[in-house]
Amino acid sequence: MNGHSGNVFVLSAPSGTGKSTLAKRLVKDVPDLDFSISFTTRAPRAGETDGKDYFFVDDATFDRMIRTGGLVEWVEVYGHKYGTGKEWVSAHLAAGKDILLDIETQGARNVHGTLPDAVMIFLIPPSAEELSNRLRSRGRDPEAEIQVRLDYAKHELCEYPAYDYLVVNDTLDRAYRDLESIVLATRLRRERMGDTAQRILEGF
Amino acid sequence: MNGHSGNVFVLSAPSGTGKSTLAKRLVKDVPDLDFSISFTTRAPRAGETDGKDYFFVDDATFDRMIRTGGLVEWVEVYGHKYGTGKEWVSAHLAAGKDILLDIETQGARNVHGTLPDAVMIFLIPPSAEELSNRLRSRGRDPEAEIQVRLDYAKHELCEYPAYDYLVVNDTLDRAYRDLESIVLATRLRRERMGDTAQRILEGF
Repeated sequence: MNGHSGNVFVLSAPSGTGKSTLAKRLVKDVPDLDFSISFTTRAPRAGETDGKDYFFVDDATFDRMIRTGGLVEWVEVYGHKYGTGKEWVSAHLAAGKDILLDIETQGARNVHGTLPDAVMIFLIPPSAEELSNRLRSRGRDPEAEIQVRLDYAKHELCEYPAYDYLVVNDTLDRAYRDLESIVLATRLRRERMGDTAQRILEGF
Repeated sequence: MNGHSGNVFVLSAPSGTGKSTLAKRLVKDVPDLDFSISFTTRAPRAGETDGKDYFFVDDATFDRMIRTGGLVEWVEVYGHKYGTGKEWVSAHLAAGKDILLDIETQGARNVHGTLPDAVMIFLIPPSAEELSNRLRSRGRDPEAEIQVRLDYAKHELCEYPAYDYLVVNDTLDRAYRDLESIVLATRLRRERMGDTAQRILEGF
């Protein structure tokens, strides 16, 4: 990162678009990119681990973090609160590490306020039909819940103008390559590479 | 390109940095990216073909193109003129194709005037020593000419603040991947993808 503070990438997507799968692969395969772990008041789902998938906290703890300014952003979705811890973000950026924030569209809007340089990426499904098929094939939610999710997906999709980049998750490999390209290209921006160029120039 | 006009990528680099090799591979492997063929008044080198490497024209023809506004940019380097034909650029962009302009740093500055949305990429050698080794190993130029090129390279490197992206050509594969990422990421910018997002949204 050449002495610069790191980059913040915000990834949002309607439920069922494949965001988690892609985000996990990205932080695994791209060097110096770490995943921000959110705080949430919702209960862990089967297979989820505290401190890995989320920091699971109770409402009182979460509310205290809000009051003391300990969150970069937070939102309430389906009656549960989700937020990004400020301390974790600051420490990573100061160390020149890039971070990936997996954030709901509501929360993403708030990130602009605290992290104006964040690179905003919106992952979108190739079509309503395809998203509907994917949600059903997961077999996780009852039909009524799926309809709620589709309606909410439409609501979220309307937020696309707030993002810097739009990635269509048609095939997973293509979407992965797109996301990786955004991360790599961001690191090559002149304002990030100026120190390197200056150092090379001084060798002449 | 979804109805948008295409993107213009400008690639500049000091002589010997590997620009031609990388540019050729880029237009060969990235779909819908075409190479702009420049007009020049210099004589063809061994192996160069008219209409493929350059359009080789005489001074009178080149001067007529300048006078009639037929060039997007032009420069004079080492006593020879180089320029990009306006007609070719306009036709490609209108067809939604992306184009890659291989342009000297002087000319790149002028492109901003006629093509303000151009994505400016500067390829830089990893060090003065490495560039010097590469120029000598080509065995094409006498030692005095190499010193002129190194001095000119330093002069060109000072132009880096005018570019959007800086790519260090340390290893060819890494530099290629960097360039490809810049092209792919540019195509994913919201202003280019808005029509696609709107169409998907309307299906909900």
